[in-house]
Amino acid sequence: MIGIKEAAERLKKAERVLILSHQFPDGDTLGCAAALCRGLRRTGRRAAIRCSDKIGPKFNFLFHDLPDDDFTPDLVVAVDIADEKLLGEPLQTQWGGKVELCIDHHPSNTMYAEQTCLNPKAAATCEIIYDVLREMGVAVDKKIATPLYTGITTDTGCFKYINVTPRTYRIAADLVETGVDAPKINREMFDTKSRARLDVERRVLDSIRYDCGGKVAVIVISRQMVRESGACEDDLDGLATIPRGIEGVQIGVTLREKEDGAWKVSLRALPPSNASEICERFGGGGHPGAAGCTLNLPLEQAREQMLCAVREYLEKHG
Amino acid sequence: MIGIKEAAERLKKAERVLILSHQFPDGDTLGCAAALCRGLRRTGRRAAIRCSDKIGPKFNFLFHDLPDDDFTPDLVVAVDIADEKLLGEPLQTQWGGKVELCIDHHPSNTMYAEQTCLNPKAAATCEIIYDVLREMGVAVDKKIATPLYTGITTDTGCFKYINVTPRTYRIAADLVETGVDAPKINREMFDTKSRARLDVERRVLDSIRYDCGGKVAVIVISRQMVRESGACEDDLDGLATIPRGIEGVQIGVTLREKEDGAWKVSLRALPPSNASEICERFGGGGHPGAAGCTLNLPLEQAREQMLCAVREYLEKHG
Repeated sequence: MIGIKEAAERLKKAERVLILSHQFPDGDTLGCAAALCRGLRRTGRRAAIRCSDKIGPKFNFLFHDLPDDDFTPDLVVAVDIADEKLLGEPLQTQWGGKVELCIDHHPSNTMYAEQTCLNPKAAATCEIIYDVLREMGVAVDKKIATPLYTGITTDTGCFKYINVTPRTYRIAADLVETGVDAPKINREMFDTKSRARLDVERRVLDSIRYDCGGKVAVIVISRQMVRESGACEDDLDGLATIPRGIEGVQIGVTLREKEDGAWKVSLRALPPSNASEICERFGGGGHPGAAGCTLNLPLEQAREQMLCAVREYLEKHG
Repeated sequence: MIGIKEAAERLKKAERVLILSHQFPDGDTLGCAAALCRGLRRTGRRAAIRCSDKIGPKFNFLFHDLPDDDFTPDLVVAVDIADEKLLGEPLQTQWGGKVELCIDHHPSNTMYAEQTCLNPKAAATCEIIYDVLREMGVAVDKKIATPLYTGITTDTGCFKYINVTPRTYRIAADLVETGVDAPKINREMFDTKSRARLDVERRVLDSIRYDCGGKVAVIVISRQMVRESGACEDDLDGLATIPRGIEGVQIGVTLREKEDGAWKVSLRALPPSNASEICERFGGGGHPGAAGCTLNLPLEQAREQMLCAVREYLEKHG
């Protein structure tokens, strides 16, 4: 494992840097890539970004005014990628085993790269890229700060998650000081919903049932709801947090119909309840706060089985 | 107008401080009051908080372990109160014309107090209280930092609004450093919805209609929806932001039925559209981003009149 200084040194020695983002790219991996690419070019280096998946319209603004480049790299850098498998195809075939520098914040990093600059305390890999760029002597201006801020705010749910540290806020302060339009970014990242999303949400809200005197709420996401609303995978993001976010609810249950008709169950629990303990009874698992399992049953039976287990758990543990 | 230093001096000279919060108290006015009260008591002074309205269960945690006190004050301080009228009753009758120090961030402050410490650039009055307490030499620990953080996060929509400055983030960094459980506070302030809220939201989502090829979205909040869902005024908070938050929507329209059957219209617009210009045609007004008016017509006619005006506006301005 290497530190900020060595990561900066390695980058400074390179002339042509290829930056790899992970598949199903999010704000952090793309923010890292855009900021690093801009920073490297600013110092006279060539740099280009590759990702196995197409970048969605939501993140296009990060690459505004950043034309692509094509060259034989003398350094291959992976940003925010915990495992080589997450390169996805075609990148894994192309660059698997060839990543020379990995900059990441996932504690699960498999150390697949020749050198790894890992800080699991960073809320977003963009925090580390900020340090690396400053170490390289790059002046972080609005164009570089914008992708960095985007990565930090998306990986922290707009400063809401437990990964946020005092340093996260301090870096955000530095970044907005350069003129980043943070309200606009946050509005687009968090407060904009597609019509399909809103429509599937409406249907899901219609499915809510309460149990155990309001301590348990259950929602259903059926294939029919998804089909009729025209929702894509992205549109379903975060729906599973709805039941647990209801006042008084201790355990939230989401039943999502899979392609084969089985039901994928997501359980969310507030302390001291343990979602994982309940899901383990059905061969699933996870964390105390969020766990899952699969039930190969018709909806009514799947819901009843889960509710039985949850009721029993709450009777035992209160 | 006085600065931080003079405000701190004034507080230091007092022995028994009465702190007033505004009516319909929010996180900022209550956060200021709780933090200032704790800080004053820490320095051996007596302090108590008064508010014309009952404090909701959402904010009870701010006053945990903070017993009330009763005395004849030698200093009356208003926090986050722009106008004496906002004291509400009974406080306005009791303390109107007698506020000696006002600490506030509203540019509209009417300067009703004997001395006013006003900083309109502060995102929350809690930012100013933080400075005042430090100027007084109070060590800001977790118990004082928790209400201050609560005020800042609620007044900025969890760091989302345009009032956030680099200093807002820096103060937040200092505060969470003391051990504030920011994720819990943010979850309770922003991610917890009452059953009634969710139910009224479901009904409102059912009412969505699109117009102008998806550039306009209209929702309806009828008295029947409110009654059937059991929603209170608080539960309706923020519903008017739903239409404008839909991808592609330029102008969002909310029609809310008033007690007398008339429809209160809230318009939200993204730049360059001007919501105020449209509402002015109906005798209303507001800001370019958010404006309102009232239409004394049956629902269908009210909706059609608004849509006509919006269509015309969009045809003219694009």
